[in-house]
Amino acid sequence: MADLVAYPMNGGHGPYSYSKNSTFQRKAIDAGKELIKEAISEKLDIKSFSSSNSFRVTDLGCSVGPNTFHAVQNIVDAVEQKYQSQGHNSQLPEFQVFFSDHTSNDFNELFQSLPPDRRYYVAGVPGSFHSRLFPKAFLHFAYSSYALQCLSKVPEEVVDMNSPAWNKGRIHYSKSADQVVKAYTTQYAKDMECFLNARAQEIVCGGLMAFVVPGRPNGIPHTEVFVNTAKELLGSCLMDMAKKGIISEEKVDCFNIPQYTASLEEVEAIVKANGYFSVEIMENLTQEKPPPKVFAFSVRSGMEGMIRKHFGDEIMDELFDSFGKKLEESSSVLESKKSVSLFVLLKRRATE
Amino acid sequence: MADLVAYPMNGGHGPYSYSKNSTFQRKAIDAGKELIKEAISEKLDIKSFSSSNSFRVTDLGCSVGPNTFHAVQNIVDAVEQKYQSQGHNSQLPEFQVFFSDHTSNDFNELFQSLPPDRRYYVAGVPGSFHSRLFPKAFLHFAYSSYALQCLSKVPEEVVDMNSPAWNKGRIHYSKSADQVVKAYTTQYAKDMECFLNARAQEIVCGGLMAFVVPGRPNGIPHTEVFVNTAKELLGSCLMDMAKKGIISEEKVDCFNIPQYTASLEEVEAIVKANGYFSVEIMENLTQEKPPPKVFAFSVRSGMEGMIRKHFGDEIMDELFDSFGKKLEESSSVLESKKSVSLFVLLKRRATE
Repeated sequence: MADLVAYPMNGGHGPYSYSKNSTFQRKAIDAGKELIKEAISEKLDIKSFSSSNSFRVTDLGCSVGPNTFHAVQNIVDAVEQKYQSQGHNSQLPEFQVFFSDHTSNDFNELFQSLPPDRRYYVAGVPGSFHSRLFPKAFLHFAYSSYALQCLSKVPEEVVDMNSPAWNKGRIHYSKSADQVVKAYTTQYAKDMECFLNARAQEIVCGGLMAFVVPGRPNGIPHTEVFVNTAKELLGSCLMDMAKKGIISEEKVDCFNIPQYTASLEEVEAIVKANGYFSVEIMENLTQEKPPPKVFAFSVRSGMEGMIRKHFGDEIMDELFDSFGKKLEESSSVLESKKSVSLFVLLKRRATE
Repeated sequence: MADLVAYPMNGGHGPYSYSKNSTFQRKAIDAGKELIKEAISEKLDIKSFSSSNSFRVTDLGCSVGPNTFHAVQNIVDAVEQKYQSQGHNSQLPEFQVFFSDHTSNDFNELFQSLPPDRRYYVAGVPGSFHSRLFPKAFLHFAYSSYALQCLSKVPEEVVDMNSPAWNKGRIHYSKSADQVVKAYTTQYAKDMECFLNARAQEIVCGGLMAFVVPGRPNGIPHTEVFVNTAKELLGSCLMDMAKKGIISEEKVDCFNIPQYTASLEEVEAIVKANGYFSVEIMENLTQEKPPPKVFAFSVRSGMEGMIRKHFGDEIMDELFDSFGKKLEESSSVLESKKSVSLFVLLKRRATE
């Protein structure tokens, strides 16, 4: 992945740390939890893995916990139940969990906060999930939560002032010209293709992959999506600061958030075009909207690194203060926006 | 492993960092390099692994590099050469390297300094090598350099003032009463047994394990070993500080370095009693003695965490200054001491 966007979540335990501000994402995990249990119970063919005495799980974009620990425990529990329900009590597999995120992720923090009562072997895998991370046919279950909305890079056109897709005065695409939206859509499709190709090599035939991402209901315009609107508001806070002369307008023009909010239709089309996976489950999960303060903290914990690198340390507190206020002022507008998470479960097809 | 001794090497790039002070160990790696190449060429039976399309290597006690990167690259190169020499050019395995060390190791530093041109997949594995770290029959080659001299804990008797093995006024065993030596020897044998049992589960039948440790030539007394004498000198520096009232004598009495310098005879006896591995190669490698200053830095980079935790920050500079001086003053004594590294190569026996 381009280093450009390899920003980790905030590590440590401070007030803006990811570990203290990830309850928003936690709800998506909980909503997906039952679906994953169901999927493992109904769709996982353990016979096809029986030659391996271990079951390998990865969480791609795991950050530092605790969400990743809850998520992988849920997967391990469900697989054990499946083995037990099929009378394989005496030959339960050994589990090995690969926590993966960018090289810049705080793996020290992750390793130091591992659940002491875990029943799996642990490994950390640094690198981008848009490329290969594991040997061929290595994984049995790949999971990713609130990570696949991240693009491998900002689409080049949107920060090129000579391009019709130049995204002047904005940091995201939802209210922008069609060319900007198209640049983001194209980048997302390319990145998902890379992601699916890499996982197709790494996941055994019959293996499962589940992911949860902030999403857009089919047929709903980009402008009507809660997380997109929030990013527009964050962009307008930056533009306010530019107007006050605190930062330069050019600096805002060349900053774009490399995240895309896809719909199930889009994901399905990309998966089908790719061909390596069958779609087993696709659902919109209604995502509760967090209170403005909580949401501002959550955005800060996830995006601080990226914004800090571009605009510098000094502006962070003022920016997120004004963002918090703008979220409160806009609460009735935000209330009307759609907030869903996509849950997608894929199965690696057998190769002919 | 008892947290007591889970001290990482110094991370980062400072003057006392392990990455800047590991040339001493580097020489042992270089000496072992040719032996490992030979061993892989002559002793590795790649046919027995051919069902797996990947070859899994671990470095146990890897610290933060760069030594671990040289070591694993040597292993990967040698395995590739072996495949090629047997005409398996078209089916070279994919390599996966598991860098393992205590949870307190600086994995962030390790991951950020990975060689960009590596031809293997990477994972970091936090935990003690005295326990299980991997699923059954998972590894093809386990390697460990300058780590297996570390005990899982200080033998309890040596810090118990009511025991005949109480090691009053000393921080190591080589000049101590027989009971102290025996306590260390017994702890080492127990720890090696745990280590071998864990690896016996994790390494495939026919898989290899190589380790290099500071050692004692067969039949040579503990007092005649360079690294032991150096530890005695470090202990006498602490006692000098106690006499000056800078630290308390009791604090020195309850501090012992949990490291043991074994001989090949001892290692062989433990491996044979364990039974899971055959001894393929055992050699004493002559270890060049580093100049006093270099050696003082090297000891500091390896032991600073342990000493700091027990005695506090304040004493570190004075302690290592006086240690450096004492090393220089004792250079003719040290010159007469034996300095070897043990190189041991084991093969996992087939289970009957």
